[in-house]
This record gives sequence, structure tokens and C-alpha cells, in this order.
Amino acid sequence: MLTIVLIVAKKPGNIPDQSTWILSPDASYVYYCANETVDGVEYQYIPETNGIPLVSDMSSSIMTRQIDISKFGVIFAGAQKNIGPAGVTVVIVREDLIGNAMKVCPSIFDFKNVEANQSIHNTPATFSVYVMNLVFEWIKSNGGVPEMENLAILKSEHLYDTIKNSNGFYSCPINENCRSRMNVPFRVGGDGGDEALEEQFLVETKRLNMHQLKGHRSVGGIRASLYNAVTYEDVDGLVKFMLEFQKNHS
Amino acid sequence: MLTIVLIVAKKPGNIPDQSTWILSPDASYVYYCANETVDGVEYQYIPETNGIPLVSDMSSSIMTRQIDISKFGVIFAGAQKNIGPAGVTVVIVREDLIGNAMKVCPSIFDFKNVEANQSIHNTPATFSVYVMNLVFEWIKSNGGVPEMENLAILKSEHLYDTIKNSNGFYSCPINENCRSRMNVPFRVGGDGGDEALEEQFLVETKRLNMHQLKGHRSVGGIRASLYNAVTYEDVDGLVKFMLEFQKNHS
Repeated sequence: MLTIVLIVAKKPGNIPDQSTWILSPDASYVYYCANETVDGVEYQYIPETNGIPLVSDMSSSIMTRQIDISKFGVIFAGAQKNIGPAGVTVVIVREDLIGNAMKVCPSIFDFKNVEANQSIHNTPATFSVYVMNLVFEWIKSNGGVPEMENLAILKSEHLYDTIKNSNGFYSCPINENCRSRMNVPFRVGGDGGDEALEEQFLVETKRLNMHQLKGHRSVGGIRASLYNAVTYEDVDGLVKFMLEFQKNHS
Repeated sequence: MLTIVLIVAKKPGNIPDQSTWILSPDASYVYYCANETVDGVEYQYIPETNGIPLVSDMSSSIMTRQIDISKFGVIFAGAQKNIGPAGVTVVIVREDLIGNAMKVCPSIFDFKNVEANQSIHNTPATFSVYVMNLVFEWIKSNGGVPEMENLAILKSEHLYDTIKNSNGFYSCPINENCRSRMNVPFRVGGDGGDEALEEQFLVETKRLNMHQLKGHRSVGGIRASLYNAVTYEDVDGLVKFMLEFQKNHS
């Protein structure tokens, strides 16, 4: 059975306190997206569901922080942010949840089938799987997930600190307790953002070979994504540019 | 509504004559696999279904023969044989069949969603899509599907003729009216095949850089797959080896 779970965010960029959540005790599962890339909101804790299986989309945060895997029923993550090229989804399922698919569930979405066929019930995106393995080896030889997490903290704090210390020239609308380590959104030229200045910011960063800094079309502004492949030096380069840009325009 | 369609093959390697098929007139669709790669059986015609939508899996034969697309309700084809790397499926749907998905149909399998989002409702296997485009360009610049079909005929006939003219040293169990142009299965050393001789055949061909010639584990023997990327010269090299091997072992 599937029951609705009610979590109401009164404003964007905010995760309501867990004490206000209304979780139906007979829900089949509770689902949440661990890191939301458009607004840049990330859970800094694992929700407590009092025994209801917890299902999480970790597409944009897996391999960037250590997690207690025993707390989850299902974790799934598209590869395209921190694991490899698009085309593969990593799924981690608690064993006792396998075999509960609806009768009409397509065979490749039925965990029981996937498990019985060792993940090749269908022909997967072999190239993506191959590269995924190379990425895992790269992560391992670079200190594993603990070091990726460490870097994620250093990189994102470097950026959030720069915003904080800009006397309002840069601003981030996200509540401090749920700011994403992966996607840092900010406005340029004051609270609401100065669109002309932001356009110029994008032109100049592009010239410096910094790409994909435009905010999602639904929110505007700037967004810096700090996935594992982005180095601390990359972030520092952006910070140096931001300081210079601020000096020239404020 | 979905009704069962009964087609009984009395022996493998054979497609029962269409006149013997029992097609339920109120079936939702008739499904067939245009080319079956394990046994090497291929339809040489498009089945007549008297108005019931025809659905075909063309994973292993698309882009290798010209087809009258107006006869189909749905054609789908995994890329991994003649289109590019695994990870993409090409789906061609008759417009009036879009929007009939079951309510529980996963959104990425609902043609209506896929169409509305121009095939990127999900994040697809981008690398596979990129290579697919290169393959389409390659096919176009090499005479298009008509020339791929022409080559498929020449390549497969070269191999089937060699088998036919081997005085029984090589044998193909598939009925002549449904032999696949893509997958040519045969036995070595007489009708039932001589497994030791076949093993030797595989060792020697591998040494000549001819790979993947082992028959599917469920049928044994040899199987030569002649997808678009295999040249006539490749096939001719195999034929020359077969003639030599026959001379040495019969």
C-alpha cells in the first residue's frame, strides 16, 4: 500500500524541520531526493521514518558523502553526476524488499529479475558501465568517499564563504542548514540579482573556460556545480574571479 | 485488451506458414521478433494481421533491409547490433497509438511522455546517442539502407553457399525460407556437428582474429554474425578459412 506523506516547505530553499512532517505510519515507503540540483538544497541528515522503508534519489550526491547504508530501503542514483556518463543507474536495495513488485511491473524494473540476472537481464549501456568502473577506481585511488566528502566540504565552503563575505554583492537564497555541497546557486549584484551583471559574469567566466555556470532556467542567476570531477583549484579559480568581478562592479 | 495469438513452430529453425496462424481478431497487437539471433531465423516478409497493430522487435535487423514502415504499429530496436553501442533503443510508433498507456505504466515507458519531452524525459545514454548519430551518418554516406541490404544479401549468401557446397561437412539446420541474413549458424563435421572439430575451428579462427564465432550456449556449434559493421571482405576471409579447414579435415 502506498500512502501520501506530507512535507510542506513554506518557501523555496528550505527543508521544514523534521518535527513538522506528517508521516503516515502505514506508508509503503518514504521517498526523498537527497540533493536537489536546481535550487541547491541538500539534506544534511538522514530522515527518521520509524521503520517505514526509506527510499532516496542520490543521483547528485552519491559518492560525495559517507552514509549509513543500513538506514535505507532503496537508494538509486543516475550515474551522470559523480559516477560516469549517463545511461546507468546504480540501485542499492535492502534484500527483504526484493520480490515485491506489482504484477504489471516491467521486467527490467523488477528488482527480483535484475538480481537473478546479475544486472544484465537487459543489455545495459556497456560503455557507461565501463567508464563507471574507471571512475570507481579513480575515487578509490584518491582517498575513497571520505576524501571526496572532505573535498566537497572544502570546495563548497570556499564558495559559500566568498558569497557571505561579499557585503551582499553575491547572495545565496538557500537556508544555511540545507545548503548543497554539490550545487551552489547565487545571485550577482544584490539580493534579487542584477540580470545584466549576471549575463556579464557568465560571458567573462566562459572566456576563462568556466562552463555551465548559468542557473537553471526556472530560477535564474548563477549555479556552480561542484561534482567530484571539479577540483579545489577549479573552485579557487572561480573564487578569485568572483573577488575581482566584485571589485570592478561594486 | 490483449489476446493471445497462437503460432506453433513444430521444429526449431522454421516459421510456420502464415496460413496456419490463428490470430484473434480483437487482439490489441501482434508481436514478432523480425530476426532471431540465437537460432538464426529471420522473417523474409512482413506478417499480414488484417488491421491488428503489428509490433516488431527489430533489434538485430533494423537498418539492414528496407521495410514498408506504414505496415507497423510499433517498431523497436536496441542499438547494439547495427546502430551503435548498447544503451539506446530506437522506437518508431504510429501516431494514433501514442497515449494509450496503462495508468501504472512507468513514465519513461509511456510514449506520450517520451514524445512530449522529445525523447529526453529521462537523461538518456548520451554517449550511445552520440555514436548512434555517427553510425547513421556512416550508413548514409555508404549508400544508405539499400546498400546495407545489398551487402547483407551478398555476405549471407556467400556463407550459405559455402555451407551448401561443402558436401555436408558444414550444415545449417535452418529452413531455407527463413534463414537470417544477420546470424548464420552452422555445424562443422556433419549434420549433428563434431564438437571436437568445432572447438578446433574456434581456436583457429580466433588465431586469425575472427572473434565471437561460437554458437549461443543453448544451441552450440558455430554462429557468424554479419551485422552492418562486418565487411564483405571479412566474410570472404571466413569463407576462405572454411574451405581450407574442410580440405584438412574431411
